[in-house]
Amino acid sequence: MFLHNLNSGPSILPRPVLEEAAAAIHNFNGTGLSILEIGHRTTHFMEVLEEAIQSVRTLTGLGDDYAVLFLHGGATTQFMQVPMNLLPQNGLAAYCDNGIWGNKAAKEAALFGTVDVVADSSDQKHTYIQKDLLVPDKASYLHITTNNTVEGTQWHQYPDVQVPLVADMSSDIFCRPTPFHQFDLIYAGAQKNMGAAGVNMVIIKKELLGKTGRAIPTIMDYQKHIAAGSLMNTPPVFAVYVSMLTLRWIIQEGGLAEMQRRNEAKARLLYDTLDSLPVFRPTVQREDRSLMNAVFFLQDPGLEASFLEQCKQAGMIGVKGYRTVGGCRVSMYNALPYSSVEAFCDLLRNFAAKHG
Amino acid sequence: MFLHNLNSGPSILPRPVLEEAAAAIHNFNGTGLSILEIGHRTTHFMEVLEEAIQSVRTLTGLGDDYAVLFLHGGATTQFMQVPMNLLPQNGLAAYCDNGIWGNKAAKEAALFGTVDVVADSSDQKHTYIQKDLLVPDKASYLHITTNNTVEGTQWHQYPDVQVPLVADMSSDIFCRPTPFHQFDLIYAGAQKNMGAAGVNMVIIKKELLGKTGRAIPTIMDYQKHIAAGSLMNTPPVFAVYVSMLTLRWIIQEGGLAEMQRRNEAKARLLYDTLDSLPVFRPTVQREDRSLMNAVFFLQDPGLEASFLEQCKQAGMIGVKGYRTVGGCRVSMYNALPYSSVEAFCDLLRNFAAKHG
Repeated sequence: MFLHNLNSGPSILPRPVLEEAAAAIHNFNGTGLSILEIGHRTTHFMEVLEEAIQSVRTLTGLGDDYAVLFLHGGATTQFMQVPMNLLPQNGLAAYCDNGIWGNKAAKEAALFGTVDVVADSSDQKHTYIQKDLLVPDKASYLHITTNNTVEGTQWHQYPDVQVPLVADMSSDIFCRPTPFHQFDLIYAGAQKNMGAAGVNMVIIKKELLGKTGRAIPTIMDYQKHIAAGSLMNTPPVFAVYVSMLTLRWIIQEGGLAEMQRRNEAKARLLYDTLDSLPVFRPTVQREDRSLMNAVFFLQDPGLEASFLEQCKQAGMIGVKGYRTVGGCRVSMYNALPYSSVEAFCDLLRNFAAKHG
Repeated sequence: MFLHNLNSGPSILPRPVLEEAAAAIHNFNGTGLSILEIGHRTTHFMEVLEEAIQSVRTLTGLGDDYAVLFLHGGATTQFMQVPMNLLPQNGLAAYCDNGIWGNKAAKEAALFGTVDVVADSSDQKHTYIQKDLLVPDKASYLHITTNNTVEGTQWHQYPDVQVPLVADMSSDIFCRPTPFHQFDLIYAGAQKNMGAAGVNMVIIKKELLGKTGRAIPTIMDYQKHIAAGSLMNTPPVFAVYVSMLTLRWIIQEGGLAEMQRRNEAKARLLYDTLDSLPVFRPTVQREDRSLMNAVFFLQDPGLEASFLEQCKQAGMIGVKGYRTVGGCRVSMYNALPYSSVEAFCDLLRNFAAKHG
């Protein structure tokens, strides 16, 4: 059976990336060694890391005033590392609570200074993005989550603020052209649009650093990672390699404009289909719908189990919604082909025809 | 040319592990999905994690009073995480400075409490293990590095102390039967004897935790990781998988007794050969020589470049010593076959015959 990987993350990767990653486990770039067996300070790996960093610069258009790092861990690590590096003990940081991950990020920041939650969409179960923000001038930064993986919402125009802007872009990085220069710090766990689990990309405007007065543990100190060229300790070599391959694939396929074209086409098809079938109930406010993750319910909750079973039978992987939200969720990251969304929409129509 | 991988880490892995890892990138356990594309809360991955944890229990013989975690990062992350979880701000921790990594670990601990360096072998460039320790009763723990990868020394009998014993076993874990129950916390970056870079194994006696009074960031809190069954956030899926395969391989090959037999045979052959050829100068005190990493110099430093070039020509990878030590280093982890050490010793003898 052909499988359609609609997982929310870890999620689908481009076929050529998987082919090359598997080949590199046998013999990496003709070295005769596995990518898992090479030293991280060899030219072989330095070239991988360098290409990954350069690809990020190509895709973002950001210059040398920003550093690009590939670090251990995922976004949850950054929930701690960002305030540790940017928020003085007596300082204030503004956070948006537009979903579960932004909420968690805010809680971690509160260990390091004062947190002002300047947006909260929990009044409507996070089915929209609260964009009406009052950010104090004295805030060290404003933190947003650009795409809420769990709730299926996405910022389509970023807030225009006077304080540094920090973003968790884990689930929508490189899904379309983005005004990256508006941001002062961007982080993203790789396991959605950018590779496999186990590595974190961090882009930082360097002038932001070194201002907290706090003694930062070495492994958490962005400045020390920058000084070490993202090689302070043994990096997650294979995960960095898969990110490099995925970034290379994005560029070869046509870059962010092409990703946008594909992602908008997929999302349009899916949301139009859902909207046309009364048996389904998409819950997110239209203007905030995510290109990456579509959340919907069945009008009759009693049909949900049967629907999910039919998805399973049809090889549709990962349709069950997140445990805090319930319902259904379909993730359409860069690597998901249009044909998978077509197949899923066929299934939606067939189900509606039987149960509509 | 056949390559002999004498890398210090990331380093050689067993062939069957690499074969299976590459196959799983195409199709993991017949799921039709890549191991890089599966959700970390699926049964598929839960079984991988569970087998990895059970294998650690099988190899260590430790029971439920200990927790086994697989976390993001490497030993450098633990340099921070251990004191954050075990050392109260007004408390004291004892550290051994028998090499560069123990020294770094002590420095990170000093951010969290008072550090008492109870052993220091820097007087002889760390060419021996200072085993003469005076550990204060009030110390929260004693920290040792069981094998000094850079300097080529190894503890062959562990200190008998009244305070909790914490060990960085990154470079010699599972190299032989070990009295694991003597330890209260063990950590190891996987990329030597236990898999690929990007994951950290931590074994903790649970009763040790929750005593610092410190607010610990969620992602650094061992207790929260234990409560979440090592699945608090998206783990480094592939790195955990490679660790599981490597642990399975150790058990299938005959366990720690067999690893010891192999490692002692390899180390005996190498050290005997070095000792018999006056052109080489092993510098580590005999009783502290490491089974894993042998450090030596050329009696005539002028011959070093030529020797390293001959190693390269002969397909011997990773013989150059660490930058702070210089000279040569040969690493002989579990996966290195005896035949590679034989080939290296042939090269040593040929070189000695020409230059002796």
